[in-house]
Amino acid sequence: MGSLPLDASSIRPLDPEAFAGNSHDVVDFLAEYYRDVDKYPVRAADLEPGRLRKLLPEVAPEHGEPLEEVLEDVRRDILPGLTHWQSPSFFAYFPMNASAAGFAGEMLSVGLNVVPFLWAASPAAAELETVVVDWMGKLLGLPSRLLFSGGGGGVLQGSTCEAVVCTLTAARDRALARLGHEAILRLVVYASDQTHATFQKGARIVGIPPSNFRVIPTSADTGYGLPAGAVREAVERDAAAGLVPLYLCATVGTTGLGAVDPVRELGEVARRYSMWLHVDAAYAGSAAVCPEFRGYLGGAELADSVSMNPHKWFLTNNDCCCLWVATPRDLTAALSTDPEYLRNVGTTTGTPAAIDYKDWQISLSRRFRAIKLWVVLRRYGAAGLRAHIRRHVTAAKWFERAVAADQRFEVVVPRRFSLVCFRLRAVNDDVNRELLSAVNESGRAFMTHFVVDGKFVIRLAVGGAMTEMQHVMDAWDLLQGKADEVLQRYYQL
Amino acid sequence: MGSLPLDASSIRPLDPEAFAGNSHDVVDFLAEYYRDVDKYPVRAADLEPGRLRKLLPEVAPEHGEPLEEVLEDVRRDILPGLTHWQSPSFFAYFPMNASAAGFAGEMLSVGLNVVPFLWAASPAAAELETVVVDWMGKLLGLPSRLLFSGGGGGVLQGSTCEAVVCTLTAARDRALARLGHEAILRLVVYASDQTHATFQKGARIVGIPPSNFRVIPTSADTGYGLPAGAVREAVERDAAAGLVPLYLCATVGTTGLGAVDPVRELGEVARRYSMWLHVDAAYAGSAAVCPEFRGYLGGAELADSVSMNPHKWFLTNNDCCCLWVATPRDLTAALSTDPEYLRNVGTTTGTPAAIDYKDWQISLSRRFRAIKLWVVLRRYGAAGLRAHIRRHVTAAKWFERAVAADQRFEVVVPRRFSLVCFRLRAVNDDVNRELLSAVNESGRAFMTHFVVDGKFVIRLAVGGAMTEMQHVMDAWDLLQGKADEVLQRYYQL
Repeated sequence: MGSLPLDASSIRPLDPEAFAGNSHDVVDFLAEYYRDVDKYPVRAADLEPGRLRKLLPEVAPEHGEPLEEVLEDVRRDILPGLTHWQSPSFFAYFPMNASAAGFAGEMLSVGLNVVPFLWAASPAAAELETVVVDWMGKLLGLPSRLLFSGGGGGVLQGSTCEAVVCTLTAARDRALARLGHEAILRLVVYASDQTHATFQKGARIVGIPPSNFRVIPTSADTGYGLPAGAVREAVERDAAAGLVPLYLCATVGTTGLGAVDPVRELGEVARRYSMWLHVDAAYAGSAAVCPEFRGYLGGAELADSVSMNPHKWFLTNNDCCCLWVATPRDLTAALSTDPEYLRNVGTTTGTPAAIDYKDWQISLSRRFRAIKLWVVLRRYGAAGLRAHIRRHVTAAKWFERAVAADQRFEVVVPRRFSLVCFRLRAVNDDVNRELLSAVNESGRAFMTHFVVDGKFVIRLAVGGAMTEMQHVMDAWDLLQGKADEVLQRYYQL
Repeated sequence: MGSLPLDASSIRPLDPEAFAGNSHDVVDFLAEYYRDVDKYPVRAADLEPGRLRKLLPEVAPEHGEPLEEVLEDVRRDILPGLTHWQSPSFFAYFPMNASAAGFAGEMLSVGLNVVPFLWAASPAAAELETVVVDWMGKLLGLPSRLLFSGGGGGVLQGSTCEAVVCTLTAARDRALARLGHEAILRLVVYASDQTHATFQKGARIVGIPPSNFRVIPTSADTGYGLPAGAVREAVERDAAAGLVPLYLCATVGTTGLGAVDPVRELGEVARRYSMWLHVDAAYAGSAAVCPEFRGYLGGAELADSVSMNPHKWFLTNNDCCCLWVATPRDLTAALSTDPEYLRNVGTTTGTPAAIDYKDWQISLSRRFRAIKLWVVLRRYGAAGLRAHIRRHVTAAKWFERAVAADQRFEVVVPRRFSLVCFRLRAVNDDVNRELLSAVNESGRAFMTHFVVDGKFVIRLAVGGAMTEMQHVMDAWDLLQGKADEVLQRYYQL
């Protein structure tokens, strides 16, 4: 069926045979892609802006085209312009895991294409979400007050950014209900200079004055964790000036360095000043499936909300972000709507048995993400997911030791999870930049950088679904070779 | 491979053979589902809250389980608890189209699993998005100032709600840059009593005082369109009171009734008072692929932004929302971030050739939605998509005439697209409610309701990917039969 152009008058968009034929072809295309992905340059080979725009027509086709032609265009025009996030030698940013189970779960979500915005609009989809977020919370050792089974609850959103906007809105409206809307000008949000930029963006989106976003400095002394004492001082200064401390963000596994904020101490400060504490464990939360990493989340029982992204390092294809809250009514009070056209069927009680998830997020419509995460948990099990995490931590440990053993390099901050931050010592930033460029231009690995205390740092984030020890060893070989080259040029100058 | 439980130590989550085997099984599962979907009760048969929670274990499994078991559980425990949005007899809310092409495109997006948040993080993915939003804009006859090719530009988001939050933030920050942040307390947003609730929610999220959201009444006289004169009066009243008119929403195809606001007249009011005009064509925008429906978007050249959802009635599986803006810098000024860890590779010029889409949306991470919409446009072509729209409009016309010809019924508001709003005349609301319940409880069709001018109205929204004339005729038979029953009971009392 896929081989024929479609005649407009005969379109049957969900004809089961045509659907199956086309879909099997795409599966085979993707299986071939995974087979070959380590042969592509990891970072897009073609970085000429506008290349693809020039290749494509300026208008959509008038008549339908065969799937084969579309797939051939993907192969010829699109793949060379992609950075291959699923390459086993992708070490940039943070990993964005795909997996057979995540893909199967997403296919079910996309194929069934139901919209669980109201419990009544697809009861089993809404209920599966309540089950799966509880499963996840228990797997990561979260305090029960964040789970439905303990009086809190969770939701699956698309990103941490979305979770941040929702929790900031909830915290803001909880405060404004008491203080009146004018007080929005006096609300203050606290984070560290290592906190993800999304918190600043989120605070701005929800109307907090940009001048009321406090960026508290960190240093090597605390491993770039946010010092609770500094937060206390800032909060007291603001309160004395008539401002209203609102929201504090603690990060477990920062984006730049993988640093960990002291959740418990920050939680105590938040409690004392009636601030909302959010714990952002977007990347490192996945590691808590292993008991040896749970300590970093100690103190989460003081949090109003916790989020982590199974779509990073938990074998769940993009997108999937778990958000847990201790008091769901704070969220729903800020995000509920009740228009007539949604009052249609069934009754909802607001208990875990019948959640209207539209009131737990920004958007009305939503995807059936729960089935994706559920398939991942069923297929790999807790034991499989622990093995997945430990494989990468072991490889990152090996890499950290290798770097430390090479006199030319230094590890910039101790590794906590699977992110190693390092640099060539005793040379200026330009040489480190040159080293990173040389590595990435080789096409054999892709890493990104960070700057801390004025120093340019290379980040190796291990975590790809296909990444094995050998790929990390190859990356180290590549780095050593390129280091020889750039240092030779440097000392000759 | 799918038949074996997974051993933790041997997990290879993207092994190509295992991936292909599992994925082919899921394709076959879904093809069977589409083959049988008209045999399921359309609305979930089981509406007992908590049923699924009770069936499932309280914790995730320790060891991986075979895919067959997972799929069997979907069949046995989950499908009976779903409302079947892909059933050809689903006429509730608005359609949420799936299609073979939408599914194929989503598989490519999910399988490649790249993250085009920066142009440089996957150039071809970002560029394809700029191409596809231009294609879509041209197909719908949008003014060129909203397209990249005309100095504006577009982005693919997940929902109208997201688009609303982004455009409200852009409009707000454009105003506050001039007036100072304190002016947030004086900003006013205008909509009609038919505007989607998401605008009120969005205005609240971005910090507009809830008391500054104006809901302007509509009436049958204007077909429930928002009268520009009433907006002008409200705006002048607010301006005289020292408030700042900020944002006006015009809807083409409202959720309740499919009403159309006079875009051009509203645009002129918006221009005169320097307000941001957003045109929400979430549902009916798809119809503009047919020239005979383009007139409703006349005046869009006065809009600051326009949005529509291909995931409703345009054969694109959930989620996909097109947002076009006339001045991208308003959007990016409000939503940009530039942390060090994203300054890594390549350079971006901000031209269509190299867009960093993270600055066009709430979230940093994002999916490769462009490839999904591109596959839909390639596979069906403009001609196929017009045929798809016209098939449903024809069926809705037939239904409207059938209702009008039955003395017991009345059409409440003239049909514009594929939504028909009707009721039993000369009886009270309870009888209409009873009729709707009887229809939905039969399992043979699913419709939802609305209330206008105090009257309970039944909505029949035609647009499912599998919905043919025969299904609409069957729904009318069903309605007539159930009307006999409820009217008989009513007149016997």
